[in-house]
Amino acid sequence: MKDHGPERVLRRSRPEGTRVKLSGVEVGGPGFVVMAGPCAVEGAEQTELAAAAVRHAGAHVLRGGVFKPRTSPYAFQGMGEPGLRILVEAGRRHGLPVIAEVMDASQIPLMAESVDVLQVGARNMQNFSLLRALSRLRRPVLLKRGLSATVQEWLLAAEYLLDGGNEEVILCERGVRTFEPDTRNTLDLSAVALVKERSHLPVIVDPSHATGDQRLVVPMSLAAAAAGADGLLIEVHPWPEKALCDGHQALTPDMFHDLMKKLPAVLAAVDRHLWKPSGVPQPMLGGAR
Amino acid sequence: MKDHGPERVLRRSRPEGTRVKLSGVEVGGPGFVVMAGPCAVEGAEQTELAAAAVRHAGAHVLRGGVFKPRTSPYAFQGMGEPGLRILVEAGRRHGLPVIAEVMDASQIPLMAESVDVLQVGARNMQNFSLLRALSRLRRPVLLKRGLSATVQEWLLAAEYLLDGGNEEVILCERGVRTFEPDTRNTLDLSAVALVKERSHLPVIVDPSHATGDQRLVVPMSLAAAAAGADGLLIEVHPWPEKALCDGHQALTPDMFHDLMKKLPAVLAAVDRHLWKPSGVPQPMLGGAR
Amino acid sequence: MKDHGPERVLRRSRPEGTRVKLSGVEVGGPGFVVMAGPCAVEGAEQTELAAAAVRHAGAHVLRGGVFKPRTSPYAFQGMGEPGLRILVEAGRRHGLPVIAEVMDASQIPLMAESVDVLQVGARNMQNFSLLRALSRLRRPVLLKRGLSATVQEWLLAAEYLLDGGNEEVILCERGVRTFEPDTRNTLDLSAVALVKERSHLPVIVDPSHATGDQRLVVPMSLAAAAAGADGLLIEVHPWPEKALCDGHQALTPDMFHDLMKKLPAVLAAVDRHLWKPSGVPQPMLGGAR
Amino acid sequence: MKDHGPERVLRRSRPEGTRVKLSGVEVGGPGFVVMAGPCAVEGAEQTELAAAAVRHAGAHVLRGGVFKPRTSPYAFQGMGEPGLRILVEAGRRHGLPVIAEVMDASQIPLMAESVDVLQVGARNMQNFSLLRALSRLRRPVLLKRGLSATVQEWLLAAEYLLDGGNEEVILCERGVRTFEPDTRNTLDLSAVALVKERSHLPVIVDPSHATGDQRLVVPMSLAAAAAGADGLLIEVHPWPEKALCDGHQALTPDMFHDLMKKLPAVLAAVDRHLWKPSGVPQPMLGGAR
Repeated sequence: MKDHGPERVLRRSRPEGTRVKLSGVEVGGPGFVVMAGPCAVEGAEQTELAAAAVRHAGAHVLRGGVFKPRTSPYAFQGMGEPGLRILVEAGRRHGLPVIAEVMDASQIPLMAESVDVLQVGARNMQNFSLLRALSRLRRPVLLKRGLSATVQEWLLAAEYLLDGGNEEVILCERGVRTFEPDTRNTLDLSAVALVKERSHLPVIVDPSHATGDQRLVVPMSLAAAAAGADGLLIEVHPWPEKALCDGHQALTPDMFHDLMKKLPAVLAAVDRHLWKPSGVPQPMLGGAR
Repeated sequence: MKDHGPERVLRRSRPEGTRVKLSGVEVGGPGFVVMAGPCAVEGAEQTELAAAAVRHAGAHVLRGGVFKPRTSPYAFQGMGEPGLRILVEAGRRHGLPVIAEVMDASQIPLMAESVDVLQVGARNMQNFSLLRALSRLRRPVLLKRGLSATVQEWLLAAEYLLDGGNEEVILCERGVRTFEPDTRNTLDLSAVALVKERSHLPVIVDPSHATGDQRLVVPMSLAAAAAGADGLLIEVHPWPEKALCDGHQALTPDMFHDLMKKLPAVLAAVDRHLWKPSGVPQPMLGGAR
Repeated sequence: MKDHGPERVLRRSRPEGTRVKLSGVEVGGPGFVVMAGPCAVEGAEQTELAAAAVRHAGAHVLRGGVFKPRTSPYAFQGMGEPGLRILVEAGRRHGLPVIAEVMDASQIPLMAESVDVLQVGARNMQNFSLLRALSRLRRPVLLKRGLSATVQEWLLAAEYLLDGGNEEVILCERGVRTFEPDTRNTLDLSAVALVKERSHLPVIVDPSHATGDQRLVVPMSLAAAAAGADGLLIEVHPWPEKALCDGHQALTPDMFHDLMKKLPAVLAAVDRHLWKPSGVPQPMLGGAR
Repeated sequence: MKDHGPERVLRRSRPEGTRVKLSGVEVGGPGFVVMAGPCAVEGAEQTELAAAAVRHAGAHVLRGGVFKPRTSPYAFQGMGEPGLRILVEAGRRHGLPVIAEVMDASQIPLMAESVDVLQVGARNMQNFSLLRALSRLRRPVLLKRGLSATVQEWLLAAEYLLDGGNEEVILCERGVRTFEPDTRNTLDLSAVALVKERSHLPVIVDPSHATGDQRLVVPMSLAAAAAGADGLLIEVHPWPEKALCDGHQALTPDMFHDLMKKLPAVLAAVDRHLWKPSGVPQPMLGGAR
């Protein structure tokens, strides 16, 4: 490892920091970016309601899973291509860029023409074939930390992307696996602060998968903002109790709205603010895209 | 475990929450309490400088180790009783209550007559003999979470204290042991939020031991405040580079001062504030403040 | 998870156990199968020497990596297709079936026509796209346990293979990630015993990656045999000190020879024996293939 | 840590290895020592039946808990001093030395006059006050590895004992805490092999606490023997289903008998044998003590 450490992702190679643009939204600058939406696209109505709710509350990017990596082959595997169309149309209607997960290289062409950010899931953080393929793409990639990846391994996974030519990389901390059974994972906010020291890449936090518990998402979101994260990736579902996937960790629209009202004061305390398009009044966002 | 779960520590047994008084300072109310000082008392000058610095910056309690649990028998084991006198005198001079660690039941009488809070270290969280002895005491106890203790085990350790009759208990999250080598431990702030849900006991955070890295202490302190912690336990040393114990994780007085200036805005964002004595003008606390 | 547990991999669905045939070698019956060879194919001479040595000592299958998943993009990534030819020819010369790792679905056609078992590495255990593709193949698959996969998740990954139609699955325990820094991973032999209880699939053990330490490979191999494993996957290199990959964990040919002499007595103690072709004297193995 | 590493426990300080004598039974030589009995002494009949059964099957030492460290204050805490008398008498009747856990320094005088080995439990591995007190004793100490202790920390805990003057130390691996929920802990047999490399101290294995599962105790016991352990510490209960403590992990007398019949062949495979008094026919053990 000593001989093969990260290079291009290190802060010294770009001391001013990297800002990644997602169809106008900038991640990694002073603006704090909130990506929100359902864990999985389950249908047109659910996605429309989620998109409307997160847009109304002030989110900047719409998330939604269409190809779902599931522990069991018998669990809902996502809607696939029809789900992708539903997601993209909802994003367009509400003026929100869209993020969705890509599970293997064969899905890249379809995803690259549809979504604004391609997400690499935690289980694929060291799927080096997928990383190599994404490194040749000219689309932002969000790279989640693996379930038991060290910070060094996570940075080296990002190095695969930069080394192959793709510099539009956003890191995402989503909790690591520990012995603690009462949270789904253990959110490692010190890793966020450490990565901000070591690397020029933006880092956001997914408190939904990290905690697996609706009640912990708001405090952990505020903590992430205070710790220096550049944004959040949050699950919001119009009816969490009916969700086909991870409903217990999704916020209701009301809870999400409440979070978005609490964030600005915490961000102000660390000299940040919710992202907004420069020179354009915030209500115009949808139209200006 | 199901048959023997916690009872007295659960929130339902005291929904309004517990407020622990340390010679006038209240932990667990709206005021956020900062305990700071050296990892170990090394001498009169070091302790005086640390006490003066943390008092000047606005800390409420002076911490300092005199009996030090050390992994190696060849490492500095603390100054013992002479160190305790130094610590207590420094606290008195600066009007600060004092917290120090008690390693076994035989030290309780000495400690109980000298310090305001007795700390149970992470390695002793399940030293049930010590917990039983402390449960019979009428002094506040700060109970650190064990290195690999689940939240349930931590609450059950506190249950030993309450069950024995001591209700003056403060919990302290100090990081758990994981596979990550680049931080000393992994600070588990979701455990703080979870404990605030489940229990009526106050919870504070020790970002110094959790991260083991001076550079991460400030962001993690702010994150702890945003996550709903009731206070902090922080290592401050006048000359971290010369410390006999854990110098790399101690803040300098300047860094600590900087942290204390940043905390109020984060606290205000979550409807909290730095603790101050009610009805008494703040400068009057110590006399010198 | 409760609703989506494993089915086809459970022992009750095939109480007599599964025996997987690799070009004549049977894994999962009373015979204990040893797969050995270099971590990575580095050239023709190294591979020939390793193959000759492991064949001479009594190994049944030749292992060798040609596409190498490496934490750093700057580490040796394997020889690829030319390496595959070297490995296959060495296997043929010495009458040994061959196992090599497949990193993504696009490599399946090439691998399936060349090697006798396709290995899924620990980092790909939950690469569900790869598992789905391999489930449609009629070739044995060796599925390594993920670095922090629970036994349940491991069995569910195997369930993807069986559910898709491929029943020729061998599980491989290779250590899990823990806080212990002095071994590369922590070999979990209780998982082997647990899987033998729960599932009908054969389970082998890789003590080389698990320990990362040449000196621990022999005791852990004997322990694996005593714990009920169906075989071993071991790294052997003619010159470990010059290896391009993980040399510190490779056995020399002499060490491997020594291990092969120690195994029969331990196996006999648990009513097993080193695999040999039924009705055919062992020296004929190469010719009989 | 580098500056304060272990010294006296290292193999180089006693290359021939340490043999600890327990009233005639020798741990750390070629003989493999089995300590067995109930998790907790629950009464005279239960203890007598357990002692008779383990003696009959060939165990060398009787174990039994009288002061029980329990996660919950509401769980059975052990019979205390009356239990100790029951245990000691059962041992005497059956000619078996006795091991029991000491929870704090105040119990040392009572324990030291009653039992042959004082056990330090996993939760107390870094109770340095207890270690210091035991280091001044002239009685063998069995030091369990902490739930999340590194091998280095475990050796340093033993160093406290040797540094204080007590060289009669037996180490005991009992599983470490990981993310795996389907075994109580993860038995780390590579730690046993590693400690045998690094240290001259004997190491035994507790597969009962490690796995928490009756069905896994036999395979893990055989694996421990094959890995080079010097003995076992096993829970046996006449009626596991009625046990007040950890019944699911206790062997029945029949299961234990079966294990004792399987061990000799595995031990022979690694040039060991079940311990027996030198020059004295084995059936005389009880009388010869």
